[in-house]
Amino acid sequence: MICFGVDVGGTSIKMGAFECGGNLLNKWEIPTRKEDHGAYILDDICEAMEDYISKHDIAATDVYGIGIGVPGPVTSEGVVLSCVNLGWGERPVAKQLSKKFHGIPVYVGNDANVAALGEQKCGSAKGYEDMVMVTLGTGVGGGVILGGKIITGCLGAAGEIGHMPVLTDNTEKCSCGKTDCLELAASATGIVREAKKMIAKKQCGTKLSTMEYFSAKTVLDLAQEGDEGAIYVVNRVADILATALACIASVLNPQAFVIGGGVSKAGQWFLDLVKEAYQKKAFTPLRDAEILLALLGNDAGIYGAAEMCNRF
Amino acid sequence: MICFGVDVGGTSIKMGAFECGGNLLNKWEIPTRKEDHGAYILDDICEAMEDYISKHDIAATDVYGIGIGVPGPVTSEGVVLSCVNLGWGERPVAKQLSKKFHGIPVYVGNDANVAALGEQKCGSAKGYEDMVMVTLGTGVGGGVILGGKIITGCLGAAGEIGHMPVLTDNTEKCSCGKTDCLELAASATGIVREAKKMIAKKQCGTKLSTMEYFSAKTVLDLAQEGDEGAIYVVNRVADILATALACIASVLNPQAFVIGGGVSKAGQWFLDLVKEAYQKKAFTPLRDAEILLALLGNDAGIYGAAEMCNRF
Repeated sequence: MICFGVDVGGTSIKMGAFECGGNLLNKWEIPTRKEDHGAYILDDICEAMEDYISKHDIAATDVYGIGIGVPGPVTSEGVVLSCVNLGWGERPVAKQLSKKFHGIPVYVGNDANVAALGEQKCGSAKGYEDMVMVTLGTGVGGGVILGGKIITGCLGAAGEIGHMPVLTDNTEKCSCGKTDCLELAASATGIVREAKKMIAKKQCGTKLSTMEYFSAKTVLDLAQEGDEGAIYVVNRVADILATALACIASVLNPQAFVIGGGVSKAGQWFLDLVKEAYQKKAFTPLRDAEILLALLGNDAGIYGAAEMCNRF
Repeated sequence: MICFGVDVGGTSIKMGAFECGGNLLNKWEIPTRKEDHGAYILDDICEAMEDYISKHDIAATDVYGIGIGVPGPVTSEGVVLSCVNLGWGERPVAKQLSKKFHGIPVYVGNDANVAALGEQKCGSAKGYEDMVMVTLGTGVGGGVILGGKIITGCLGAAGEIGHMPVLTDNTEKCSCGKTDCLELAASATGIVREAKKMIAKKQCGTKLSTMEYFSAKTVLDLAQEGDEGAIYVVNRVADILATALACIASVLNPQAFVIGGGVSKAGQWFLDLVKEAYQKKAFTPLRDAEILLALLGNDAGIYGAAEMCNRF
């Protein structure tokens, strides 16, 4: 028996075939066709799965489930409410995909929530039933796992950690229209924004002020090399992220936080700054929560998607 | 068949006898004996229950459960980790009370979590499976209910909403040692503190500056009468509370928030201020969350405690 884990992104669809216990057999990618409001996406996924089972001499009846993560809110019944990046409006993906692929059970989740489940099952939070993942990428996303299950919230918007209002002293607008979102500081674009603010205010000396263009990676690298301005920015970012983690801890008291996404590639050094700030912001009984780097990278989505077939 | 709902406080123990469906038959109180590290509390509860069943001609075998809320962290196995107010250290209350009372199943929860369950079952959040209660009293407490179940967290510290780090511009210390806790502004003592700060800074004209002593109620009453300084304070408090609610919404996307405790007696007018601030702080898809006044007052604890017998 096998199951498929599928992670639908705006440019490519990652796919994996897994054994029952969660062991990855094969993984591959196909492009995301967004034409006609993403009308062909589910058919393309089906075709790829049919190809796989025919090539590997697997009967359709030997596929026990399909898990799929999508970039948008999903109800606990597997109805996608919207996926702007795919051109989808409301769509009963679980039903539609199951109908297209031999009536096999389909489990649908938000991609950030599904990635959290992946890290909980096979990544750095293995063994922690209650955990929260925060993904620091172009934006900031998140996923909440309690008792080993994804928390979706009543509109599928649980884990929208990027829009927690924890930023002060800011007037620039987030894509959502607010000016206080975590995402405005702790995403890759946020780090660049904070650095530009620091340069404009001439708060610290920094090599960044001589550069025409720089990325979040530049800021993180320079901070590690001792650049005063870059250190100021990274400390501020760590502080704001720690405030969000301490707020989450007060509400849920999880065993572990997992930090993933491009920004987390700065590594242990960045994580240590976040941990230090977290110790100051968190209520004393909550300070022992683990703060861990994500392990699975871009594969977290397919691992988590496959795991939905085992848990739900 | 009946069950008992028990709410253990620092000065009195509230007790209720309930029918299976959650209907309250009788309620009464006994004093909390804190002598000898609270050694007699469980015996006193047993005696009161024995009295009740003998007076009402109920066989012990007709009692199907006992639910009990205590002022401290409780693990999901019913072990109380500590209750400073009762003189208790770690104590396996579920086991001990069950042994003392005919081997009947005992369910133990943190008092704020149990009160949340009460409001979810029989109070203003009736019908909402996912809800968060915030109690604004001497301190600020809270409880998280997801899928109709209490979320305890790994150390029984979930729902410690009073210590969310959402306060800025403050140097005074919370009882926990931090300076950024929600409780420092949104509790009864917090409101008085914020008012004194406002008076010291002479930020606004206010009748409060002529008073030798005032309470949170005085501040709330004066604000409703149009006192400029009191309005400033209450708006700031509503803003900070709304920030915490918006943070919680981003993490859990609950259907409803219930606001209880003494401060909430200010009523609909105060709630409307909180709602208005919440609309600005919350991520757009989360703005439809209901914000409701608690209905059950001091009885929330016994209702929730009894309900634990039905759900766990």
